Amino acid sequence: MTSTLPTTQMANAIRALAMDAVQKANSGHPGMPMGMAEIAVALWSGHYSHNPANPKWVNRDRFLLSNGHGSMLHYALLHLSGYAVSMDDIKAFRQMHSKTPGHPEVDITPGVETTTGPLGQGIANAVGMALAEYLLASEFNKPGYDVVDHYTYAFLGDGCLMEGISHEVCALAGTLGLKKLIALYDDNGISIDGKVEGWFTDDTPARFEAYGWNVIRAVDGHDVAAVSAAIAAAKKADKPTLICCKTVIGKGSPNLQGGDKVHGAALGDKEVAAVREYIGWSAAPFEIPADVYGAWDAKAAGAAREAAWTELFNKYAAQFPAEAAELSRRMAGDLPAGFDAALAAGIASCIEKKENIATRKASQNAIQALAPVLPEFLGGSADLTGSNLTNWKECVAVRSGQPGNHINYGVREFGMSAIMNGVALHGGYIPFGATFLTFSDYSRNALRMAALMKQRSLFVFTHDSIGLGEDGPTHQSVEHISSMRLIPQLDNWRPCDTVESMVAWGEAVKRKHGPSTLIFSRQNLPYQERSSQQVADIARGGYVLSDAADAKVVLIATGSEVELAVAAAAALAAEGIATRVVSMPSTDVFDRQDAAYKAGVLGKGLPRVAIEAGVTDFWYKYVGLEGAVVGIDTFGESAPAGVLFKHFGFTVENVVAKAKSVIA
Amino acid sequence: MTSTLPTTQMANAIRALAMDAVQKANSGHPGMPMGMAEIAVALWSGHYSHNPANPKWVNRDRFLLSNGHGSMLHYALLHLSGYAVSMDDIKAFRQMHSKTPGHPEVDITPGVETTTGPLGQGIANAVGMALAEYLLASEFNKPGYDVVDHYTYAFLGDGCLMEGISHEVCALAGTLGLKKLIALYDDNGISIDGKVEGWFTDDTPARFEAYGWNVIRAVDGHDVAAVSAAIAAAKKADKPTLICCKTVIGKGSPNLQGGDKVHGAALGDKEVAAVREYIGWSAAPFEIPADVYGAWDAKAAGAAREAAWTELFNKYAAQFPAEAAELSRRMAGDLPAGFDAALAAGIASCIEKKENIATRKASQNAIQALAPVLPEFLGGSADLTGSNLTNWKECVAVRSGQPGNHINYGVREFGMSAIMNGVALHGGYIPFGATFLTFSDYSRNALRMAALMKQRSLFVFTHDSIGLGEDGPTHQSVEHISSMRLIPQLDNWRPCDTVESMVAWGEAVKRKHGPSTLIFSRQNLPYQERSSQQVADIARGGYVLSDAADAKVVLIATGSEVELAVAAAAALAAEGIATRVVSMPSTDVFDRQDAAYKAGVLGKGLPRVAIEAGVTDFWYKYVGLEGAVVGIDTFGESAPAGVLFKHFGFTVENVVAKAKSVIA
Repeated sequence: MTSTLPTTQMANAIRALAMDAVQKANSGHPGMPMGMAEIAVALWSGHYSHNPANPKWVNRDRFLLSNGHGSMLHYALLHLSGYAVSMDDIKAFRQMHSKTPGHPEVDITPGVETTTGPLGQGIANAVGMALAEYLLASEFNKPGYDVVDHYTYAFLGDGCLMEGISHEVCALAGTLGLKKLIALYDDNGISIDGKVEGWFTDDTPARFEAYGWNVIRAVDGHDVAAVSAAIAAAKKADKPTLICCKTVIGKGSPNLQGGDKVHGAALGDKEVAAVREYIGWSAAPFEIPADVYGAWDAKAAGAAREAAWTELFNKYAAQFPAEAAELSRRMAGDLPAGFDAALAAGIASCIEKKENIATRKASQNAIQALAPVLPEFLGGSADLTGSNLTNWKECVAVRSGQPGNHINYGVREFGMSAIMNGVALHGGYIPFGATFLTFSDYSRNALRMAALMKQRSLFVFTHDSIGLGEDGPTHQSVEHISSMRLIPQLDNWRPCDTVESMVAWGEAVKRKHGPSTLIFSRQNLPYQERSSQQVADIARGGYVLSDAADAKVVLIATGSEVELAVAAAAALAAEGIATRVVSMPSTDVFDRQDAAYKAGVLGKGLPRVAIEAGVTDFWYKYVGLEGAVVGIDTFGESAPAGVLFKHFGFTVENVVAKAKSVIA
Repeated sequence: MTSTLPTTQMANAIRALAMDAVQKANSGHPGMPMGMAEIAVALWSGHYSHNPANPKWVNRDRFLLSNGHGSMLHYALLHLSGYAVSMDDIKAFRQMHSKTPGHPEVDITPGVETTTGPLGQGIANAVGMALAEYLLASEFNKPGYDVVDHYTYAFLGDGCLMEGISHEVCALAGTLGLKKLIALYDDNGISIDGKVEGWFTDDTPARFEAYGWNVIRAVDGHDVAAVSAAIAAAKKADKPTLICCKTVIGKGSPNLQGGDKVHGAALGDKEVAAVREYIGWSAAPFEIPADVYGAWDAKAAGAAREAAWTELFNKYAAQFPAEAAELSRRMAGDLPAGFDAALAAGIASCIEKKENIATRKASQNAIQALAPVLPEFLGGSADLTGSNLTNWKECVAVRSGQPGNHINYGVREFGMSAIMNGVALHGGYIPFGATFLTFSDYSRNALRMAALMKQRSLFVFTHDSIGLGEDGPTHQSVEHISSMRLIPQLDNWRPCDTVESMVAWGEAVKRKHGPSTLIFSRQNLPYQERSSQQVADIARGGYVLSDAADAKVVLIATGSEVELAVAAAAALAAEGIATRVVSMPSTDVFDRQDAAYKAGVLGKGLPRVAIEAGVTDFWYKYVGLEGAVVGIDTFGESAPAGVLFKHFGFTVENVVAKAKSVIA
């Protein structure tokens, strides 16, 4: 920063924009932007390496607000420093289809790296970004060519630090030694209920030291030079750093600063005027003096930064053309030329082998088939690697100082999932991570965030039903599959055999702009014979697996219940009742097919029975009031799987009876 | 303990039972019981205050396994010390309908206090139990009469400590100074993926000291005397205590101890034999030498303990009869005599006032109406008290050393919910706690556990749809209401006005053996007129709110969309289309009504349109393939609520059009 303008005025520009935008919307959170204004000045004018003209510059520093309610801080910074966020955009804060929604949303606002608001997940995304940078640098940098070399900065507040996910991800960041992660803690002693001393008394610095972080304590968060010095020190540390900044929430508001009332509501016209007086800000609302704009303007410096990097990258590309092309491909999220062939070969191999294996094993085979052409695969498991089977022969475990492509995330399902989202947002990798299906509950909001952000995070869930047996109801999913189907933009796959498992993996990888779940059995499932057209139709989410001329009833099944549907159809045929079987590995994908295809598969007017080892409610969407569902609307039990399936009515006899009951 | 038998033999009895039961089931987790055997001896024979003949003795110490996969440890302890867990029960480990399921399940096994397995929630339940004990003691004890006076002991492992929820609840326990909570950490350095050093390197003692806990470091977990001394010290501490016990997982297994292979699988016949040799245990499988039984037998001591307490309680009852009767009522979970009248008065008041207010405000009014007769109300919020409106005029915030009846849980949704479950399990309180509906995701598995355990935890969720407006899609629920309906045994209520809100609270409180969610709007909703029969029928979950002779279509709505249904019915009537409106505040409760009632409400054969500001899938269960749903199958947007409802089609015009489309 070469400006001679006092940093006070730069900070006050943030305060003015934040309070005025919130006031105009009569909605929003002025407290955080006003309290973190000097911290933002210190970071953005002294350290943050970015280019406002190209928010997607590959080697930019990543900056995110884990305390996303302070969105106006980020919007103010983007506007002031020269991003394509106009004053009209600022004025449209929190209005329909504006660039400035209530919480930061990636792909809505240029310069916003992730969508935040659900507390704690921003710092988790930041851990994912720092992890991706670390791994990508180790893969691609060459002596003298640090083409991947950036920091990840996260702002966070008391709320993030109270959330459990902050424990999971910060502990892992410490263990992995992600030294280019720098978190700035807005230690203002206030949360929505008031002074945190009644419910939040952690010694946060000691807590983070226990995680193996570098902690810089007791920085005056309103002293730009002090914060800047702390950031400079953090950049040199060999551990992730937490900079603890003592601040006053809503600083600049003479009557509200330091209290909870300034957190999440407009100040009111009177207090807005009082702030202007108090901080000496005479400009009208939504007007910024030219010298302040000048001091904040980062366009020239940003362009120079990117130009310098581009020069470096061009030299790198000249010397290492393959690596440069590969890095560019990976960061663009494009699949390699060999992908389609590898997928086809994988499918062909499944068809040739006709294996009767657990789909979790089929999933591992799929990973194994694709990994050679997908160096961007970054696998992992929440301490169930040998059960989830997310590892493959050549994978290398990531450790501190030892890069690789498989993460032992520890027993941290939520953290894993939100870290994966951060990896996907960063680019360069396709993250997948696994746990038992029931523990998708723990990570559920990260699945939702992946869907909202349209990120290619692949969530692998094994042990998908009462079929896991003896571990009992705490571990047996009944509601989870249907409940994930309710999350918009999330594709859920529950394959029935090796071929469907391979196709599901292929579709999930190909889905560049959206997450998928891949749901697999613990127990062995039989291979199903298919024509080549049927194999092709798997990718449509649902298809006729076996048909009969003049079918009288349609059995729709997923995953482990397809076997049962096939057996029941045979039994019905033996009784002279022609029956169609539809395999429906992904209702989400099937629902996107054209009406003619769907009607063709489901057989318009035919009575239907759905079969799934889960709750029944969802399936009435397909079978209607006159159809039937063979499912389980209670919790499971602890017993061997075979005993359970029988106990809960997953028998040929029961399906046959249900089928007969719906035939007019 | 008066036995002179070496404690080694007592510990080895656990080892033998655990490995033999797992071997017989060919399923289960021998590593933890074998590794924590001496710790169990130290606690159970030296400190644990209980009575095997009465597992429900009110003043017993609570003991639970947060590392619930080690269930055989608890079953062995229960069997050996004299609970109604026979050797046949042990032999039926993990078999259908046995008393010894794969993970501990409350109400299945006498002496099991909570259902565990989903890691981290056991320690959260323990925090809830310790909290209940602290509050109940402060309410009921009198000088010389500590009628509520027990410890809560939790075993936990590396997995629990990695989980984020352990951060949330242990931090809060430290802040609240729950000194009678004693956790014993099985520090064996192994998790399922292997040696934890690659993914879990926390300085756990330092972490817990940062929470304000008393930490006893580096105890030899195989030295009964050392562990016992640590427990004795912990009992005197003025903070919650973590005892860090260094152990060898699977200790006693000469070829597998200290490794991950002993964690979760049968040892195999050969290694089982090797263990017998190695530890010098000559008894046959499922045979326990008489002297070992004798050493473990806790029946006489337990009976004496309870008898002494009963004597104390009887004296207390003589001196404080009202308090004694009240404590007994509260611990039995019975409602007070005045409850029905208070509820009826609350409903009458709503009907008299006819207020058009947000249902979150109606919820607060309901709390206010019931609190005077329900001293067992223990409210709270995850740092959104002023938004959730879970507080009431006379409530007192709980602080360290300051008992009360409202908890500021901090930004800890999952921790709050699992603590509530612990409070409910302990008895004496009806816990309720709140957050925004979208953040039910964070606590989702605790909701599931409440349902599985049939506990009266009341989960309050406000800001229940796009109606929250400007905060945007991260905060706007679309899938949550339907997704919670999929959880078995969970009753979900989404009332449309003050009367339904009052009834929902009443039903949730009356539901002694099961949890409920109470889902409320941010925005104002109009009062609906009803006959007394209609008011009575609210409790049936769904009822005809307005009818028309010879109705041609039925509109089914919940919560904020009932207003829209009523308006659309009027518009349809104006066009000569007679329309019925069904208000369906709880589909779960409605589904339990008899077939005749349900058919009467839904109007057999009539075309139906469901209206809810959420995903549509669930509603086909009621409207069928020929019906229609007015819902929202995408994420929301950041904008004022009125703009959003219009944008997403929640308009009279759209509902009218949909209604016409389904009329044949």
